[in-house]
Amino acid sequence: MLAAMDMVTLDDIRAAAIRIAPVALRTPLLSQPWFTERELWLKPENLQHIGAFKIRGAYNAIAALDDGARARGVVAYSSGNHANAVARAAKEFGIPATIVMQESTPRVKVEATAAHGAEIIEVPMAEREAVAHEIAERRGLALVPPFDHPDVIAGQGTIGLEIATDMPEVGVVLVPVAGGGLASGIGVAMKALCPDARVFAVEPELAADTAAGLLAGHRVHWPAEQRARTIADGLRTEPSELTFAHLREVIDGVITVSEEEIRASMRLLATRARLVAEPSGAVSAAAAFFHGGELPAGRTVAVISGGNVDPALLAEVLVSTPRAGVAGA
Amino acid sequence: MLAAMDMVTLDDIRAAAIRIAPVALRTPLLSQPWFTERELWLKPENLQHIGAFKIRGAYNAIAALDDGARARGVVAYSSGNHANAVARAAKEFGIPATIVMQESTPRVKVEATAAHGAEIIEVPMAEREAVAHEIAERRGLALVPPFDHPDVIAGQGTIGLEIATDMPEVGVVLVPVAGGGLASGIGVAMKALCPDARVFAVEPELAADTAAGLLAGHRVHWPAEQRARTIADGLRTEPSELTFAHLREVIDGVITVSEEEIRASMRLLATRARLVAEPSGAVSAAAAFFHGGELPAGRTVAVISGGNVDPALLAEVLVSTPRAGVAGA
Repeated sequence: MLAAMDMVTLDDIRAAAIRIAPVALRTPLLSQPWFTERELWLKPENLQHIGAFKIRGAYNAIAALDDGARARGVVAYSSGNHANAVARAAKEFGIPATIVMQESTPRVKVEATAAHGAEIIEVPMAEREAVAHEIAERRGLALVPPFDHPDVIAGQGTIGLEIATDMPEVGVVLVPVAGGGLASGIGVAMKALCPDARVFAVEPELAADTAAGLLAGHRVHWPAEQRARTIADGLRTEPSELTFAHLREVIDGVITVSEEEIRASMRLLATRARLVAEPSGAVSAAAAFFHGGELPAGRTVAVISGGNVDPALLAEVLVSTPRAGVAGA
Repeated sequence: MLAAMDMVTLDDIRAAAIRIAPVALRTPLLSQPWFTERELWLKPENLQHIGAFKIRGAYNAIAALDDGARARGVVAYSSGNHANAVARAAKEFGIPATIVMQESTPRVKVEATAAHGAEIIEVPMAEREAVAHEIAERRGLALVPPFDHPDVIAGQGTIGLEIATDMPEVGVVLVPVAGGGLASGIGVAMKALCPDARVFAVEPELAADTAAGLLAGHRVHWPAEQRARTIADGLRTEPSELTFAHLREVIDGVITVSEEEIRASMRLLATRARLVAEPSGAVSAAAAFFHGGELPAGRTVAVISGGNVDPALLAEVLVSTPRAGVAGA
């Protein structure tokens, strides 16, 4: 167990909300009355400039650095959206950013990051973190981790602050989980402000290490090759000691969704909510659409975490015919 | 020229804003920093429950009926989104709705309207209006026209009120035009609140009757078969005497966009703004993307009017390779 001082608090999240206000969109809750099985709202973080919630944590972490450290620049490793977020936040501060990416990152994410003026270094997935640490040490740069830092968690937690403010009577909150920064931050905010709400983490069946870990009471490691099977390329990482400690405290359950359900959710979000969601961004809505029986009653908010998807994949999902068993898709 | 008392005023729009607040989403302005040629924001009316701005005018018009007339029910004719809006608004009031649709209306729009419990009558395009009037008279129902009514114009004008509130320094506003209700309403609000802003109507080259009409100083009729050529199925109608009188007063110019530019705009909106826009909803952004040289400088807002598009068309647009001359797509 971590020392209490490492755990993110509501005050940390409130401080983050003030810091990020100039750059993060305060996303609305979008009611979805066409979905009649439960009262459902979407929190469209795909509408952030960078197409994902990650700008909240990255900007908060860089804003919290002392001036001297920040001026030297930052380095990050990421499967894509965090990279884009750090590059964009660094540009706002006028400081250099170096991003270490895995070679399989979708081109759309690589190009978006490079467009912010960041230096991109592509390496095999397994070397990402080590290379980033090595560059940070050699060049004297601050490393902005994708989830394993209190300032990053607090930044993502501002989404929970907004949900609690806009809908204090919320009953169920659905959040994608992988590294766990988003679910940890939102969970802390919800437990502090809406203690009756139930917060569910959602992950692909093919990368269900968090479900296994929370059941076991300790982190459970799945090999990277296994986690790489899911179409949800943003959900292939695992919680850290810090985020897992948060998840144990603030998450009421984990829902796992199939690859077919993720694709059907992307299609429903595009056609019924007019939102482009990437696979990782569509898992929370998939839980509402296809796993309502596993959830308590109550007004439900699904966080659509991101929308950076290769056009060809989105097109494929739009015209595919779902298999039997995926209702309403 | 119409009598002054027929022209919609800022007070009408302010009254509409209060009426529609319970059912219309107050859409945010979405900054698009990836588009570097001008400062661009999108007003995403595709995120309304019904996927289009039409809920604003329809709900305002029904709310403004006297109680006795409203209780008998309403009838409407529409190319799709107005139908859905009237059906949805009628459901909110608990009154019956009859909708007359043209037979070529996309299935996605027909089904969405039927889902609100409305009675649907499908007829050839040319008979729509006459059939709706006949039903209204025979059954004693109030006809809610898609654009040719001050209450409908005032309802759509609430979008202008929101733009002026959120960005008083706006320089250019881009609005799709066909029947002219949306452009009239937004134009009235902008001229009253932001007199320095320039309001441009945008229409397809293949249905450019408004551009021709404003140039001539009187309405110019294009045959329905000609207007039916454009992919923008929501922009095939023509202004009425009432809306044309408004357009002459409040519109600073018309931009016409090609079919290829409309498709490229849909693709850019999906991949860079993560928004699903229907062809009619993408024309305003197409003007910003491809006709910047015809626009004055200044902060620019493009109204994305709707997002109800058949999945197969969206998929086709996502994977198509734009022809030379459509930059950035």
